[in-house]
Order: sequence, then structure tokens, then C-alpha cells
Amino acid sequence: MTAYLTRVIRFSAAHRYYRTEWSDERNYAVFGACANPHGHGHNYTLEVMVAGVPDPATGFSVSLAQLDAVLRQEVITSLDHQNLNFAIPEFGDGGLIPTTENLVIWIWNRIATLLPARLVRLRLYEEPGLFVDYMGEPSPPDPDRPRFV
Amino acid sequence: MTAYLTRVIRFSAAHRYYRTEWSDERNYAVFGACANPHGHGHNYTLEVMVAGVPDPATGFSVSLAQLDAVLRQEVITSLDHQNLNFAIPEFGDGGLIPTTENLVIWIWNRIATLLPARLVRLRLYEEPGLFVDYMGEPSPPDPDRPRFV
Amino acid sequence: MTAYLTRVIRFSAAHRYYRTEWSDERNYAVFGACANPHGHGHNYTLEVMVAGVPDPATGFSVSLAQLDAVLRQEVITSLDHQNLNFAIPEFGDGGLIPTTENLVIWIWNRIATLLPARLVRLRLYEEPGLFVDYMGEPSPPDPDRPRFV
Amino acid sequence: MTAYLTRVIRFSAAHRYYRTEWSDERNYAVFGACANPHGHGHNYTLEVMVAGVPDPATGFSVSLAQLDAVLRQEVITSLDHQNLNFAIPEFGDGGLIPTTENLVIWIWNRIATLLPARLVRLRLYEEPGLFVDYMGEPSPPDPDRPRFV
Amino acid sequence: MTAYLTRVIRFSAAHRYYRTEWSDERNYAVFGACANPHGHGHNYTLEVMVAGVPDPATGFSVSLAQLDAVLRQEVITSLDHQNLNFAIPEFGDGGLIPTTENLVIWIWNRIATLLPARLVRLRLYEEPGLFVDYMGEPSPPDPDRPRFV
Amino acid sequence: MTAYLTRVIRFSAAHRYYRTEWSDERNYAVFGACANPHGHGHNYTLEVMVAGVPDPATGFSVSLAQLDAVLRQEVITSLDHQNLNFAIPEFGDGGLIPTTENLVIWIWNRIATLLPARLVRLRLYEEPGLFVDYMGEPSPPDPDRPRFV
Repeated sequence: MTAYLTRVIRFSAAHRYYRTEWSDERNYAVFGACANPHGHGHNYTLEVMVAGVPDPATGFSVSLAQLDAVLRQEVITSLDHQNLNFAIPEFGDGGLIPTTENLVIWIWNRIATLLPARLVRLRLYEEPGLFVDYMGEPSPPDPDRPRFV
Repeated sequence: MTAYLTRVIRFSAAHRYYRTEWSDERNYAVFGACANPHGHGHNYTLEVMVAGVPDPATGFSVSLAQLDAVLRQEVITSLDHQNLNFAIPEFGDGGLIPTTENLVIWIWNRIATLLPARLVRLRLYEEPGLFVDYMGEPSPPDPDRPRFV
Repeated sequence: MTAYLTRVIRFSAAHRYYRTEWSDERNYAVFGACANPHGHGHNYTLEVMVAGVPDPATGFSVSLAQLDAVLRQEVITSLDHQNLNFAIPEFGDGGLIPTTENLVIWIWNRIATLLPARLVRLRLYEEPGLFVDYMGEPSPPDPDRPRFV
Repeated sequence: MTAYLTRVIRFSAAHRYYRTEWSDERNYAVFGACANPHGHGHNYTLEVMVAGVPDPATGFSVSLAQLDAVLRQEVITSLDHQNLNFAIPEFGDGGLIPTTENLVIWIWNRIATLLPARLVRLRLYEEPGLFVDYMGEPSPPDPDRPRFV
Repeated sequence: MTAYLTRVIRFSAAHRYYRTEWSDERNYAVFGACANPHGHGHNYTLEVMVAGVPDPATGFSVSLAQLDAVLRQEVITSLDHQNLNFAIPEFGDGGLIPTTENLVIWIWNRIATLLPARLVRLRLYEEPGLFVDYMGEPSPPDPDRPRFV
Repeated sequence: MTAYLTRVIRFSAAHRYYRTEWSDERNYAVFGACANPHGHGHNYTLEVMVAGVPDPATGFSVSLAQLDAVLRQEVITSLDHQNLNFAIPEFGDGGLIPTTENLVIWIWNRIATLLPARLVRLRLYEEPGLFVDYMGEPSPPDPDRPRFV
């Protein structure tokens, strides 16, 4: 009787797509306006889905208070009102580009083991017209792993 | 050539999280403001996903008229403009707490066998920032069960 | 150079439309399902519009921190996770019915003089398909009063 | 480390549900107001989900520029500001009915092999209260196929 | 103590922008893709704002039941699942073009005198990115007319 | 028979609230996290309302093609994927702070005289929970100026 609870949070951040080891020409060819100097920004929306069996006494599949505390401390405090290229070492010069794909994977790696329930999916919206889902490293085929329809 | 059609409906209801066999202190420690006397309420949004193969003549994978009739009679009539703790016996004193998890499971059990097509997922929003998915009891591993990506 | 800043907040509450001095029949004739015993509830959304001239040094037309503090203390603390018929004396037995109209006027009267800028409009959504605007008591015709188009 | 990127696009189109080989009575019995002469229309929203592994240098799991180009040329140009019954041969007289199910399958068949990354799901909204998912022909059980939760 | 209540309704319709007395070239130059043969369509959203003073006994500024009845009979029945160029005589060949402007004015003229409260504004969305407000014929300056901010 | 048409556009930008002539302490006291180094960013939504009388032949109160061209050239090209503090001279060091108030006024001043119809209101969302309206410099009381209700 597993239920999949999703909490939705928001944060605002700046970022720039640029590889310092490439020429400006190559950066613009690959990243377009995302290579503009000084960056731009977004209101991100993050959906955090965790799995759990509702407790017979409380009806809760997860402690929302604990879930919210982890998200506040690990996601909001780290990313909200920040410039990702400067605030997150992995996205610094010569590192990973802070695309939506790389950012959602970064968040997964940061929170997966800290959450009070099993993390099953992150969905990160960069804007209403673009979002990325991540479900962790592919594990070997496991018939018990919940499947969506 | 299975298609997954989702119908979205809304209902408004009140509820309270409280166990009469517990002290007020314990209720507030576990349920927070949800334990306030006389309850509070929400505009719920329910997504009902059913699977079907489009009929070659009509293009329909399910009869929307029949689907809507079941949802109106079994969900809207039962829950809309109601206080869940009083209107639904399972959520009465000493019973289950009407959390989003327990409510989505209650809806599943009420409608799954009445729908004109196979029910594959319910998603229930309590508010825009919190929703719960339920896909029924886990069946034994079944490679034919549709999987989502 | 007046700007009109709007802050949007949310709260969840229960309410019931019922006059104890009327018969059940009359209550149902006037209020329909809103007269159901034990009430129902909504996720309310409140838009608070205030007028101000941006400060040349800060660019702020109002202190958001002060605005948010008043809204939290006077609106959220009073109404969120509450049953309006019991938590707000004006909406108790024999008093006003907690309709969207009466509730938005109640909020206006509670916060108008406490806000750090002139309150010009409240918009209260009971659900996405129904909202009520209130702009205070009609004052005598005042050509300086800002007009919207 | 597969990520699932979704692009959201919109188009507006007219359609009518009607089989010329049936009587008016039968058409209205099966299709209701969708059988009205001259059709009606919708603002469609299409979510296109593709799978890919983020490139270490660019952080992209797919070329958005190429993805957008295919969607513009194959979906927008074909369907936006069109009447589906006349603009799409498969939906002409005696053909398929342009239901949401048939339309999402038509789009899948048109774009799946043209996209710069593996197409894993299409979600087509006809209106906010009705949408259909399609994931392609069911393949034989494949434990490597990504599964959603 | 006037409150401004707004009801939101939806309908889906097809339309085409085309003047039969003009050449195809001129029609396409003026109307673009909206001149495509057989039309296209939209999910329209209509906001109907009426003014009223809350009744001391009921808290209602208008009878929602009566308001909804007029909207259902005069707007939904006339426009939903219709092709505006054929279903509405004013929008027929040689008549008015069913633009958002003309349609919102048509609705105003149809319902203004039938509503149970004074109509003060109609807002009609053709799509999320385009809407038109109409407030009736400009009356002579009237200092008592409510003003918005 | 004036209609008020609103076009909605979006752009993404970064900004920082900081006065170089102030100490870090004072900047943080006034601007909070908005003073963080390297800035953060938002998905802005801009609503542009213009007034016009529908043309009897075309039904248009304004040329949407011309309106969109001005918005693309003057707003999107200037602001989208930019850092406001660096891309807009008025928001550079020692200049105005790029708050929502100052930004909506900047846009008004840039486009008001270029639009193909009279600009009556700009509404700028910095995020779903905060927006600012601007209607231009207050003109002397003018009973003919349209009023909103």
C-alpha cells in the first residue's frame, strides 16, 4: 500500500553557461544567449517525490516536518538567491555547467540519503516550458521497484 | 497501442487530524495546526488516470460520459462540501486520519472496480505544493504491467 | 510615479453557511451544500495591493519585510488551519456568514491601518473559479485617487 | 545517469467528431456536442519527454535547438491554427476521429524517429481537465527500459 | 461597502478571421494564419465581474445560483463546442470578425441586462498570453462609479 | 466602445540589490539575500495592456503584429538572458536598484511611445507571489480617463 508523496518548493537563482577553456565563439555556438556575460536567472520549481506506507495511527507516509527541514537546509539555503556558478563549487570555472540536468542531479546527490523516506523522483522546472526528471543511478533490474503508469 | 487518459476533477472539503485516544499535547506534537478544533479545509484536485486502447471507430480509449458519471456519483457526491471526519465513516473517531495519503487510497478503493476502464493512477493535490500518487496494491512482478518513463 | 505592489499569500480554512435562527429547510434553500453540517473548506489565495512611490535609494515602494510581517501576524495566524465560524468571533452563531465577500471585508478592516503602505485593493480567491475584490468604503469622489485601466 | 527532459509547446486547432457513414442521431449519441457542425476548438498543450545522459562538457542531455526545430517543423507547422479534420489526411472523412488519443499517437508517429534523443512519453492536454499520455507501442518486457515512480 | 465578485467560466469554440469580400491575399496579409480555411479554435476563459453590497443576513452580494444560470444559458449554451462564424449570426459572412475584442463585446451585450447584479467588467482570455477587458460603453463622467486600483 | 487588450510575455534575467556606496552591513540590512554577491534571477512575466476601439472591418483594437514586434525588440532583446545590473545602464553601479518597481517603470518609459496603441497598464511579475502595476505618471484629473472596476 505504498503512496508517493510529492512536496513542491521554489527557489530563485542565477547561472551562466560558459566554459573558460573555450573561445567566446565556441561558447556562443554551443550555449547561445546562456553564454551572455554576468549570467541570467530563473524561478526554479522542484518537485520531490518520496515513497512510503501510510502509518496506521497517523496516516502519514513520511514526516512532512522532517522532509521540509531537509529541503530548507540543503536546497533552499544552498541555492535560493544565489548565483550557481559561484555558490556551488561543482559549477565553478572548469567544472560542470549548471544546466537543469546537472542541477537536478546535484540536488539528488545532496539530499537522497538525508531524506526521511526513499527518494524516487526529482522534477526540476527551469521555467514552465522546460523541466527535467531524475530518478537516480540506474539500478539492476528490480521487479520490486515501483513502476508508474 | 495503449493510451493513458487522465480526467481532472475538484472538490472542497474540511478535515481535522486528531486521535481522541491521545492527549491534546500528543495530537499537537504529531499533527501541528492540523489538530486545531473544528478543522480546516482545502480545495482538492484529483487526477484519475485510466488505460485503454483507442477504439478504431470512435477514437475513444474510454467512455468519458461513463467515467464522469462514476466520478460525480462516487467522489463529488461523497466528498464535495463535506467534512471528511463526519461524512466518511472510515475517517470517524478512532478510525483513520483523513490525510492526503489515506484519502487517495479511500478514493481508489471506492472507484477502482466501478470505472469503465482500468484505473492505473490517482494523484490527489491537497494544495498546489503537496500531492500524493497511489497506484493500488503492489501486485507480483508483472512484466506486462505498463511502465512509465 | 506611484507603483502598485501586490503580495500574494495563501491560507486554508473551513467554514459553514448557516443561520441558527432559520430552519434547516430555509438554510438549504439559501445556502445549498454550504449549509452541510460540520462545514467544508478551501485553499484561499489573497492578493494584497498597496500603493507607493519607489524610494530613489532602495527602489522599494514599500518595505516587503514589514508588509509580510503584518500579513503573517494578522492574516495567516488568524485564519490558516482554522474554522472561520469558530475562530473568528464576527462569524460565530448569529453573526455574519463567512462568505468570500464578508471575509475579504473582515481582512480589510483588520489590516488596512496596520500596513506600511496605503492599501488599495484586496482580491480573495475562494477557488480558482470565484474571487471577490474589495477596495474599502466608498470615499467621496476624489480626483487624486488612482484609477485603473 | 539518465535524465528525462521535457519540452512544453502549445498549439491551437479546431476539430469535429463525426463519422459521415453514420446518421446524425448516431453521431450525436456517441460524440455529443463534439458532433456539432463546423467543429469547435482547443488550445492544446504538448509535453515531449526525451531521455539522455548529460554530456560532461555541455551538461545537455539533448540539443534543445534541434529538439525545438523538429517540434516547430513537424508539430507547430502542421497543427497550429489548423482544422485537424481538413489539414491532416488521416483525420479526413472516413478516417480516424481526431480525439486526444488519436492525435497524441499521430504526433508520436510523426516525430519519434526525427528527434535528436529517444522519445519516452508524450502528454497532450486538450484542456486543463483532460489529457492523454502515450509511450509508443508496447515492446516486449525489457528490464533495461527505464521505469518511473 | 461594495464588493466586486468575479465568476470564471470556460468554453471551447472554433473561429476563422476572413472577409469574403476581400481577396485571399488581403485576408492573409491582415489576418495571417487566422485566415486558414476551416478555422482553428481555443479554450476560452471568461471572467465576469459584478458589483454588489453584501446582504447582512446571507453575506451574498449577488445570487450565485442566478448568476451561474444566466452564464450557462446565455454563454455556455451559445458558444461552447460551437464554430463562432456559423453559430453566431453577427459573426457570419460579411459580418463582424470573431476576434477576442468583438466576442467579449458580444457577450457583454447579451448578458449585461440579464444578470442579477450590475456587470462591471468582462475579461476574456483567448489563450494564456492574450486577453481583452471590456467595461461597456463609456458613460458620462460619474464620480460615483467605482474606480479600481 | 473601448476594449483593453493585454499581451503577456516572459523573460529571464539576473539582478542584484546592492549600493556600492554603502557598507556590506547596510546592504544586507536593507536588501537581505538580494544583496548576495553575483546576484540571483527570475522568470519575469510582463502583462502589457493597451486601449483601442475595435476596427469595424478587422475586429482588431490594435495590430498584434506591431505590438509583438515592439515588445520583442525593446523588451525581450534588452532584458531576456541578461543581468540587469550590467546590461541596463540605468541599473549600473551607483544608479537605480533593479527592483520590480524600478524595472516596470523602466519598461514603461522605453515602450510607451513606441506602441501602436495607448499603453494603459504594465503588470510585472517577479514571481507568482509578487507583482507590481504601473500606469504612468499621474496626469491631472481627467474624467474621460477610463476607469476600472
